[in-house]
Amino acid sequence: MAAKFALTAAAALAVSLSAVSAQTFQRLGTCPTLGCILPPDQQDFLPGQQFDIRFEVHAPVNGSEAFNGGVPDDKFTVTIEKDGAAAKSVADFFNKKEADLETWKFSWFEDLFAQEAKSPSVVNVASKVYRRVALYEPGEYTITLNYYDGKKTVAHWTVRPLATKKRAKNVIFFIGDGMTSNMITAARLLAHKSVNGKYQSLLALDKFPVLGHQMTHSIDSFITDSANSASALYSGHKSTVNAMGVYADSSPDLFDDPKVETIVELLKRIWGSAWGAVSTAFLADATPIALTSHTRSRYAYGPLIDQALHGLTNYSWTNHGGPDVFFGGGAEQFLPGSDSYLGKDYYAEFAKKNYSVSLNKTSLLQASNDSRALGIFCKSNLPVWLDRNVFPENLDSLTNDPAGNKASATDLPGLKEMTLKAIDVLHTRGGSKGFFLMSEAASIDKQMHVLDYDRALGDLLELDDTVGATIQHLSDLGILDETLIVVSADHGHGFDVFGSADTKYLAAKKTDREKRGAVGVYQNSGLSQYTVEQPGVSYNTGPNFPVNWDPRYVIASGLGANPDHRESYGLNKEGSRLPATSVGGANFVNPADNPDGFIVNGTLPTSEAQGVHSLTDVPVYALGPCQEVFGGTYSNIDVFYKIADCLGLAQPTNRTTCAR
Amino acid sequence: MAAKFALTAAAALAVSLSAVSAQTFQRLGTCPTLGCILPPDQQDFLPGQQFDIRFEVHAPVNGSEAFNGGVPDDKFTVTIEKDGAAAKSVADFFNKKEADLETWKFSWFEDLFAQEAKSPSVVNVASKVYRRVALYEPGEYTITLNYYDGKKTVAHWTVRPLATKKRAKNVIFFIGDGMTSNMITAARLLAHKSVNGKYQSLLALDKFPVLGHQMTHSIDSFITDSANSASALYSGHKSTVNAMGVYADSSPDLFDDPKVETIVELLKRIWGSAWGAVSTAFLADATPIALTSHTRSRYAYGPLIDQALHGLTNYSWTNHGGPDVFFGGGAEQFLPGSDSYLGKDYYAEFAKKNYSVSLNKTSLLQASNDSRALGIFCKSNLPVWLDRNVFPENLDSLTNDPAGNKASATDLPGLKEMTLKAIDVLHTRGGSKGFFLMSEAASIDKQMHVLDYDRALGDLLELDDTVGATIQHLSDLGILDETLIVVSADHGHGFDVFGSADTKYLAAKKTDREKRGAVGVYQNSGLSQYTVEQPGVSYNTGPNFPVNWDPRYVIASGLGANPDHRESYGLNKEGSRLPATSVGGANFVNPADNPDGFIVNGTLPTSEAQGVHSLTDVPVYALGPCQEVFGGTYSNIDVFYKIADCLGLAQPTNRTTCAR
Repeated sequence: MAAKFALTAAAALAVSLSAVSAQTFQRLGTCPTLGCILPPDQQDFLPGQQFDIRFEVHAPVNGSEAFNGGVPDDKFTVTIEKDGAAAKSVADFFNKKEADLETWKFSWFEDLFAQEAKSPSVVNVASKVYRRVALYEPGEYTITLNYYDGKKTVAHWTVRPLATKKRAKNVIFFIGDGMTSNMITAARLLAHKSVNGKYQSLLALDKFPVLGHQMTHSIDSFITDSANSASALYSGHKSTVNAMGVYADSSPDLFDDPKVETIVELLKRIWGSAWGAVSTAFLADATPIALTSHTRSRYAYGPLIDQALHGLTNYSWTNHGGPDVFFGGGAEQFLPGSDSYLGKDYYAEFAKKNYSVSLNKTSLLQASNDSRALGIFCKSNLPVWLDRNVFPENLDSLTNDPAGNKASATDLPGLKEMTLKAIDVLHTRGGSKGFFLMSEAASIDKQMHVLDYDRALGDLLELDDTVGATIQHLSDLGILDETLIVVSADHGHGFDVFGSADTKYLAAKKTDREKRGAVGVYQNSGLSQYTVEQPGVSYNTGPNFPVNWDPRYVIASGLGANPDHRESYGLNKEGSRLPATSVGGANFVNPADNPDGFIVNGTLPTSEAQGVHSLTDVPVYALGPCQEVFGGTYSNIDVFYKIADCLGLAQPTNRTTCAR
Repeated sequence: MAAKFALTAAAALAVSLSAVSAQTFQRLGTCPTLGCILPPDQQDFLPGQQFDIRFEVHAPVNGSEAFNGGVPDDKFTVTIEKDGAAAKSVADFFNKKEADLETWKFSWFEDLFAQEAKSPSVVNVASKVYRRVALYEPGEYTITLNYYDGKKTVAHWTVRPLATKKRAKNVIFFIGDGMTSNMITAARLLAHKSVNGKYQSLLALDKFPVLGHQMTHSIDSFITDSANSASALYSGHKSTVNAMGVYADSSPDLFDDPKVETIVELLKRIWGSAWGAVSTAFLADATPIALTSHTRSRYAYGPLIDQALHGLTNYSWTNHGGPDVFFGGGAEQFLPGSDSYLGKDYYAEFAKKNYSVSLNKTSLLQASNDSRALGIFCKSNLPVWLDRNVFPENLDSLTNDPAGNKASATDLPGLKEMTLKAIDVLHTRGGSKGFFLMSEAASIDKQMHVLDYDRALGDLLELDDTVGATIQHLSDLGILDETLIVVSADHGHGFDVFGSADTKYLAAKKTDREKRGAVGVYQNSGLSQYTVEQPGVSYNTGPNFPVNWDPRYVIASGLGANPDHRESYGLNKEGSRLPATSVGGANFVNPADNPDGFIVNGTLPTSEAQGVHSLTDVPVYALGPCQEVFGGTYSNIDVFYKIADCLGLAQPTNRTTCAR
């Protein structure tokens, strides 16, 4: 095959350039050449962190990259070397037997024109995978894939320094899904009174001593989703949209992609600590489930709940032991039926593993702190803070009872109740081994997607209230000093407030252009009316929330990325917004949404019914042991390395305590 | 008058509520009651900082607040007490003679309906002012205004702790006007190459050890402008939109409002240090001119340039001595004519005070470092980085020569050349007394206003490049360790990137809705093409800027607050955008802007031709002595107090070194 694969330098450049010019539609994001190493070039590793390695050689059959008649080189070889030492074969280096060859084909579109013309580019693949290896010595590693008789793809990996000592006994990691600094600023304006420019009270977040920014981009696209960004935060490895706990390969199997060990897998293996996840989303949603998931598709909800309980069953892998606490929504994957794994009853599966099972707040609060605890409080996502606390009548029409009947779930905990209970269980069960808790305010993101700014900010304020209550609770338990609290986000939405809107004037005007005159900017933005008490109105929601959600002058806010929609800026009292509705696959203004508002045509493809994520770096707030390392600007993967260092997870050996 | 002014509690409440409900249109923002104390309640002061105090009693003639037949109480009295000590009259407390009574009237609109109906509310005012006082002892002060025979308005003031020791010899304060974290993220994406999710180089800002957030809101509106936000950063006192260095009163005189001493006035008085301002705006623009301005109107350009040179002439006040360095645009206020103060030639006025005068880059670089230096390089704002460096042909048609002929200014310095030269002059002239430099990247804001994202981000990258070069230059001069560098912004715009756009597809499609299909989100955002070299194309702009400004796949970005406009996301090669044009006072899509794009109708009043400022907290980056105090979240006024503490400006006496 030698002559066939001899490439001139110019031809190699041409291949490289064509891949680059099509880079918003990609053959395989981490692989601009025809040889792929996964994990790819420029990846970092925690010492001792377990991972799989996959190699692929691509032979495009057609399209701008067509090569070798579509026959991939199945004789490719791979070497690995550390810091300039002698190169060894991967099998020798990791003391593994030589992997078997796998082959498959896949197709992709080179650009929108190709997609419209339904002209896919087809690629044949030869591949090998080496599973469950680890690098224990800090330093630089070079992996070289030799293929097509002279072509080379090289990956440089960095194993970060050791950090074997636990400096924080416990870590609580709050994630405001989609939460940006802009939203935090807006939430403060709604809930906290200012007199002549001086806030009379502040957010809990405002009092954190250390602030940083983290970059959220994917490994192969600059806008991320919540799956791979959560995964980066939990594993120190960026991935591809919709993937979690793996580097996405090109194979059709959603569960064979090369894996990386996550923080709860590491923590369980190394220290045997307790761990838990709390979310206002359904628990199979990306942010909670990424703690234990290893898949190319976040949408495999049923199997992922099984992974959360039983760990991986298709490959030998670290056993995370199952969560000590697992609180949220998403009864669909627990009730036996088409949405649960193999149709099984996961309430029963968890109970078999000695979990207490709570289906409402009353039961949650009464659950033992000694047992592992499952709490599933509704189908789908938890109703948002604003509906639970200000418009509870909006819950009545729901059929979201987690027991599976068609009733409404009304005895609902909020993020605060779930989080404080989680701490009690984890503190009891973790004992001297400590604990890790992830607590997610999921509907900041979900409500920003539907442009329901009030509901998004309500859930942000619920997160802030929860953070404040958590600090108090840890103090009461005497464990504040030994607990690192990190509050961050997984990505943003391009939201900001730009003025106020006079809802009375807006409603009184007839034309769209006249209605826009209701917006007051600069001096006419005036002062927040959300903090001005209304005679006779009290929501009894405490000092960290607005005293008036429905003032005449509301904030005028929005995003740069929208579907077609109608704006009137006022509160949506009957429930969450549905800004656009689909007619024949294309989305138009929902006639029922803000009928007295003015139309704003979208900036997104008409296939999008919602807003989308944005690029912005998101804030990181830190308090407690190791807080000082969270200042400045860094990548989302560094959040993992900082927490892992603080927990002493960077180990030089395959340290394994007995998990259950 | 006793009976007439006796208010029941209910009536007092009614007055208070009516003021509150009209709060986006305000009688006087800092004065919800009929008695006004300026500085108002909840203000902070640096020990020894000089300021004026004004009292006003309002008598609304008509409208919802009509009171006492429109006759203000001119017998009002005022007391002041410290930390519960005996109350004294203001005259006694400050050892001043009793002030004379002033009276005037003003009018305002209570809401948009009143404004449309041309029904103003008229208010008669009785007032007294006490000028140039100071509070030297840290603590709490209570000021009570007694009026209308029983009504009281109370203000609580806080004098912050003393800090008499200089911990930084020099301070360089960079302001990216309108710069947000979102924009910084976008700029990084354009200029710095990422491989598999890891940036191969970073912004200078990314390397700063300490990061904070500051809140930018005005004293009386939640959206600020650049005048009063700059003023807050420079004086520790928030103000009102368009005001600088004063608390805005209700009098018609734009120059009689109660003043506060600014950082350069303090620094000159206390330490006799050198100081300078550099901006890519015209120098009479808010951010540079607020260092020395005391006025209700930022638009008094001519007089404000005179204040910058000569200090105040209408009242006795601290003499800042004139800037040692004053570099930027804005020849209009220097050339003799209708735009200069009293028609005078300010090149000559500055020369009389022994300034070197440079009108181009060549002259700037040759100017002596021993002399005070004026550099005015064009009329209006400096052309932006992108036009100066990538499209210099766009400068040819301008008639902005600072010498006043109709030629084009082409020998232009950038922010970096101006800033490095400023450091040389200030270092030489400050000597052992140190220096303060404010350097502003003005057109981040100006180009965001016109939705020209590329030009805005180009100027942000120029700022970042300047910050990096400044650190290197200070290191070369051996003064990096004694210089505090702070980089922040005065406010934001609600900008974010939400995907990529295929410019080829967008141009090929016919309808607005089809064109939107060019936008790629999430996975299809792909990778930045701005960092991919184009064969044969080099702008020679160095490693901190894009290698390709005009790729096929561009960032898709935008704001929530817009005039009507047309988007195609691509580079505007012929110069800055003009998104909307006015027809009969209302703004519509500019037919000449992005003619191949799709229309996005605005969200702002049709009177607005541009985007507007936004609410978001903005980042603060710190490096050098005192860097540790800039972490966390705080108000924009705290930036002043942190810098002032670091410079030892919180003094217990009226310390005055000899200024020139």
